[in-house]
Amino acid sequence: MKKEYQYIKVIGFDADDTLWVNETYFREAEYEIQRLLSDYETPNKIDQELFKMEMKNLPLYGYGVKAFILSMVEVALELSNYNISNKTIEAILNIGKNMLEKPVELLDGVEEVLSELSKKYRLILATKGDLLDQERKLEKSGLTNYFHHIEVLSDKQEFNYQNLLNHLDIEPSEFLMIGNSLKSDVLPLLNIKANAIHVPFHTTWAHEEVSKKETNGKTYKKINSLKEVIDLLK
Amino acid sequence: MKKEYQYIKVIGFDADDTLWVNETYFREAEYEIQRLLSDYETPNKIDQELFKMEMKNLPLYGYGVKAFILSMVEVALELSNYNISNKTIEAILNIGKNMLEKPVELLDGVEEVLSELSKKYRLILATKGDLLDQERKLEKSGLTNYFHHIEVLSDKQEFNYQNLLNHLDIEPSEFLMIGNSLKSDVLPLLNIKANAIHVPFHTTWAHEEVSKKETNGKTYKKINSLKEVIDLLK
Repeated sequence: MKKEYQYIKVIGFDADDTLWVNETYFREAEYEIQRLLSDYETPNKIDQELFKMEMKNLPLYGYGVKAFILSMVEVALELSNYNISNKTIEAILNIGKNMLEKPVELLDGVEEVLSELSKKYRLILATKGDLLDQERKLEKSGLTNYFHHIEVLSDKQEFNYQNLLNHLDIEPSEFLMIGNSLKSDVLPLLNIKANAIHVPFHTTWAHEEVSKKETNGKTYKKINSLKEVIDLLK
Repeated sequence: MKKEYQYIKVIGFDADDTLWVNETYFREAEYEIQRLLSDYETPNKIDQELFKMEMKNLPLYGYGVKAFILSMVEVALELSNYNISNKTIEAILNIGKNMLEKPVELLDGVEEVLSELSKKYRLILATKGDLLDQERKLEKSGLTNYFHHIEVLSDKQEFNYQNLLNHLDIEPSEFLMIGNSLKSDVLPLLNIKANAIHVPFHTTWAHEEVSKKETNGKTYKKINSLKEVIDLLK
């Protein structure tokens, strides 16, 4: 095992786009709303306005599908100059319901990795989605038994991780976070002297993108497939 | 101290309507939507249909303000036969935003009780609302420092409390739950042999009401003011 990982007791796994497909469904939803609002604006403009609305509402609504649906409804009202049909609003609500009912598609190697690591470490699911939605996905995934519990964070900033470590009663050096988002699953951990491993997913939400400047001088482990974790922690 | 409470290590406090006013704001929102939809239906019918819609959506959306807003929008579409104006839909979204921005009004004796109990017990906030919304309310309340952490439960059934106890690594006899809902904060605890104290709030959401049959033969402590907890645990 690499020396830096020798103190680890608890491993936090991000859920969406680390264990299972998620961002793909948001992208599909975005195409769908572009189609529904095509009488009013170009796809590109709709995309931009939806993102702006999500950012505007983020402090109030937080993350997750319900927040996303509410922002879609609000964008539809505004971009149509309050001329959107009731049936289109219903269709938007249904986009959200469909997202919540999607089957769970596990990413490559997930079960093998969790099975191996759960023998030696306490595993937790650390996510910023809706709790009910994540519990449902975990249940559908068949992975429940590998995890000690689910931790829902309202955001994934240094402050939130510090609270999590206090709550788990462990030192930063004893915690390793594994996830697909540099911004949420890696950088804040490095800043509080905990451990982090980056496993990129092919699609990244604009809100999760980080600039070269933010990663400047930061060293972190990046792997291409979750399976590589097993060798790193052996 | 009463003998039954001698093993208690962790006390879970429900948040809404136990520490601060909440149900009152939902009732105000219901009056508001009755006013907005008054062209289409009687207040009573609107109330009934909104409750039905919330119950229909509960498995998918869970609890909390965002779920409530989405159900209000859906009811407005249906009760108006898809004739509701865009401005009214916007007004409904704003009802929700206002709810999320309400000031926090502490109930009588809360600070005194938390201050006293936190000297001897680990206190946690155990709620089934939205995490972000509850964190915000806790922050506004000024009570943050009394609590070890917030536990958001997707529901408050025996199963959820059993998970919570596993997660906290404590026995049922070591846990006491205090809250205003017989259904959510008291009965499931008694069923898993943990402790519970009931502090009623003057208003109860229909979904939280329990029948005489459900409480039949169950003995639990009911107090009229949260302050009475101090003497019970002394």
